[in-house]
Amino acid sequence: MSSNNQNAYVYNAWYVAGWSSEFNEELTPLVILEQALVAYRCADGSVAILEDRCPHRLLPLSKGQRIDDNIRCGYHGMTFNERGKCVRIPGQDNIPSSAYVRAYSIHEKNNIVFIWMGDPEKADIHTIFDLPQFASDDWHAHQGDALHLQSHYLNVAENLVDPAHVSFVHPTTLGNSASEDVPVHVDVDSDVLVAWRWIRDAPPIGFFQKFGEFEGNVDRWHYYYLHMPCTAVIDFGSASVDAKLEESERDKGVRIFALHFLTPVNEHYTIDRWMHLRNAALDDEQASDQMDAMFRIAFNEDKEILEAIDEAEKRPQLRKPIRLAIDKGPMVYRRRIASLIEDEISSEEPTTLVG
Amino acid sequence: MSSNNQNAYVYNAWYVAGWSSEFNEELTPLVILEQALVAYRCADGSVAILEDRCPHRLLPLSKGQRIDDNIRCGYHGMTFNERGKCVRIPGQDNIPSSAYVRAYSIHEKNNIVFIWMGDPEKADIHTIFDLPQFASDDWHAHQGDALHLQSHYLNVAENLVDPAHVSFVHPTTLGNSASEDVPVHVDVDSDVLVAWRWIRDAPPIGFFQKFGEFEGNVDRWHYYYLHMPCTAVIDFGSASVDAKLEESERDKGVRIFALHFLTPVNEHYTIDRWMHLRNAALDDEQASDQMDAMFRIAFNEDKEILEAIDEAEKRPQLRKPIRLAIDKGPMVYRRRIASLIEDEISSEEPTTLVG
Amino acid sequence: MSSNNQNAYVYNAWYVAGWSSEFNEELTPLVILEQALVAYRCADGSVAILEDRCPHRLLPLSKGQRIDDNIRCGYHGMTFNERGKCVRIPGQDNIPSSAYVRAYSIHEKNNIVFIWMGDPEKADIHTIFDLPQFASDDWHAHQGDALHLQSHYLNVAENLVDPAHVSFVHPTTLGNSASEDVPVHVDVDSDVLVAWRWIRDAPPIGFFQKFGEFEGNVDRWHYYYLHMPCTAVIDFGSASVDAKLEESERDKGVRIFALHFLTPVNEHYTIDRWMHLRNAALDDEQASDQMDAMFRIAFNEDKEILEAIDEAEKRPQLRKPIRLAIDKGPMVYRRRIASLIEDEISSEEPTTLVG
Repeated sequence: MSSNNQNAYVYNAWYVAGWSSEFNEELTPLVILEQALVAYRCADGSVAILEDRCPHRLLPLSKGQRIDDNIRCGYHGMTFNERGKCVRIPGQDNIPSSAYVRAYSIHEKNNIVFIWMGDPEKADIHTIFDLPQFASDDWHAHQGDALHLQSHYLNVAENLVDPAHVSFVHPTTLGNSASEDVPVHVDVDSDVLVAWRWIRDAPPIGFFQKFGEFEGNVDRWHYYYLHMPCTAVIDFGSASVDAKLEESERDKGVRIFALHFLTPVNEHYTIDRWMHLRNAALDDEQASDQMDAMFRIAFNEDKEILEAIDEAEKRPQLRKPIRLAIDKGPMVYRRRIASLIEDEISSEEPTTLVG
Repeated sequence: MSSNNQNAYVYNAWYVAGWSSEFNEELTPLVILEQALVAYRCADGSVAILEDRCPHRLLPLSKGQRIDDNIRCGYHGMTFNERGKCVRIPGQDNIPSSAYVRAYSIHEKNNIVFIWMGDPEKADIHTIFDLPQFASDDWHAHQGDALHLQSHYLNVAENLVDPAHVSFVHPTTLGNSASEDVPVHVDVDSDVLVAWRWIRDAPPIGFFQKFGEFEGNVDRWHYYYLHMPCTAVIDFGSASVDAKLEESERDKGVRIFALHFLTPVNEHYTIDRWMHLRNAALDDEQASDQMDAMFRIAFNEDKEILEAIDEAEKRPQLRKPIRLAIDKGPMVYRRRIASLIEDEISSEEPTTLVG
Repeated sequence: MSSNNQNAYVYNAWYVAGWSSEFNEELTPLVILEQALVAYRCADGSVAILEDRCPHRLLPLSKGQRIDDNIRCGYHGMTFNERGKCVRIPGQDNIPSSAYVRAYSIHEKNNIVFIWMGDPEKADIHTIFDLPQFASDDWHAHQGDALHLQSHYLNVAENLVDPAHVSFVHPTTLGNSASEDVPVHVDVDSDVLVAWRWIRDAPPIGFFQKFGEFEGNVDRWHYYYLHMPCTAVIDFGSASVDAKLEESERDKGVRIFALHFLTPVNEHYTIDRWMHLRNAALDDEQASDQMDAMFRIAFNEDKEILEAIDEAEKRPQLRKPIRLAIDKGPMVYRRRIASLIEDEISSEEPTTLVG
């Protein structure tokens, strides 16, 4: 790969392990940042996520059996509690200190299960992503789906700080030709990158033809917020040109927050869990499904392109890719990720693989 | 892989190429220890196994044609006899000394075809595995099936010198919870490793509920014999507690020998041909099929676990696996195999791959 | 691989990109010598073939949209004309010099589209393969099909300068046992290798049983011409023994030119586009289809063998393959290819892959 950081993730960060609805009493295997994990809900309702590898013969614990809040390995019965501590070894009394599995810090909020992949001492639940609109009666939140992409997470994230692509990739839903040449602004001052533009006095895009009931032209905005490392908030909406909306008055239009939580599985596989919040059609669950349907069209268009790029990056590259004016957001994003990874590596003790 | 000897097999050993019924006049390709072979029965009934590679353009001879006891290559007609000697090269009269294929030492016994994979001069048919019970009228022998596992042969063999796993892996057939904490004894003095234990005064396991007609509790034994490198004999059985059986009196109970002949195909693929001998229901062929059905359930449970371990071993290992008290048999087994391989390597002339 | 030049092709050569009928207004992706290409017909009927990789984010241009003779990338709208020049970058006015894709030299002749894969300055259309019979009223040309082989092109080409294999590989169509031991002559003096033999006074092969209406024995010839690097002409035919044909009188018999245009896709994949010219049954289109059917049988026999060899070559080789008297043509061919590749490498500036 020419442009991705190989074998490298930001570990000291909260990632989304899944929607709350994905976790129950069953032992569920999942992979995040190439680490095999097993998840289940305990009797008190909390979610436990452990290393999915018995330290004895490496059998995934998810192949074993749940007994109360413990997991018993399916091969020789070694048993671990929800904190990863070994509580039984059949056939022997002493339990060596090496008999444990890693347990991860977990926090559930807004019906989303977050997992901390790095140094447990640095896990701070106050840094978990949130939006005030989750708690507002003026907004409706709706969980969509999980898009599985055979694509590097940096390429997926780059697409989420890139308002320019919608004109060409999503011509029937999220973009149209009116925006093709409108320049993109980028703000990089805070911890959150923002790439944005307004398209003034133009026909509504497919999404707002369906949900805006607009007659005539509209002013349309796209703000792509990227929270390090892997959460994107796309604030987009429209208002009648007659409303002469200021940039700060977006709540007066039909406004949507499309959220994307990226979970890197490995260097060629990313899960994008997407949902939306909206300030219109609040109690209309049909609108939720209809919006999902349009998002699904658009995100599958992204998937086709991103997976083709992943394949193309595997080929030998005779020339360096070029960067364009619209790439400021993606370029700053990649630099920040590289810097976060560099910081983690330089502050860590060396790890040796066991051959 | 963390715990397997990479790219390494014991060559100076008899392996099972197949049941006798697997060989006929057809040219049959097979792979043993990563070597491509072609097998067929000659006119005199003997089995010939040759290197499956024409020395000219490398076409597998199994793609060619059998002519009497010879094989004619399907590309240009080079013809080899059952001893690997080239007997014809169309279009030329002289046959160079390099025009041959390797022929393997073969011996057929107890309806099993054995192949010697190493130095032909060391092949001694008197070292081929046998049991006196094959020739006894008090015993019935029945060939089961071939289990194909995507698993390293050392992991499969380890499972066959490990009585402890049956309590957790085979709870409905070969084990039950009564044996969970019963310690395992291991004898390592002879050429054959033995790991064994008795479970006294406990309910019969599924197998003997079906075949023992026991009322009440039984004494049950499991003796796992491992003959280097790849043959396992599992002697297990049960008798009523009232019989007060000594360890040496196992023939007085219902006694089964489950035989496993492991044939490593490559480092991630092993064939386990299994069969049994029994001292009960001697003439009841229905019993053979019923036992096969129970074995099939159990061995598929092993397969699921062993294949999951093979996958797990491919991941990077941050911590060394731990060993437990029950692991003495497997650990001695691995050390002996490593030692046999080391002996072969140090006694051989260096081999150079042709680039 | 033991006998192939690894990662090496002759670049300064015309290859067949496809039959003329394979190209139309659609953007068609294809791969030649491991290079991803996109092909389409322009408004003036000419075929354009470009590098299939947007220099911005590497998306294949074949995923984009054709606009007149230009291609617009499907991700951000960068647009290239049929000569590879970038003519638009949405959102910015300046077009940097690095914004281009490679355009290949193309020439269409005899309903075949040829592509030059090397240094554009060395492309000379006068060196493109031709036969006078294409323009002759005494001959009929018929395009057959494209055979896709999972095989190295050197192995496929070797098969096409090898008259000896037909006796064993194609016993029902292009060979029979009469030719098994007939020696092969090879002429290597010109740029074109020729391997040939006559089989005099023998029963006709399957092909001429069907198309020759011969009674009794025939004289049969096979001349395998190999034009460097990847074009083969197989001149074969038969005449009644009574005609006492000289070698130079082949036009008096039923004579067929089977043409094979090899297009290496990568080291394990070759496309063989095959067609024939004939001097008999000139206006009988049924004959074309019937000949195709026989060729299809024969070429699938080659495919099975060549793909098995490709698999065999991937295994470690403990002994060097041997060469036979019939191998002179293939051996000279391989040496010439190696020499052409060596010449290209030594005359080129070093290329560095971009990591």
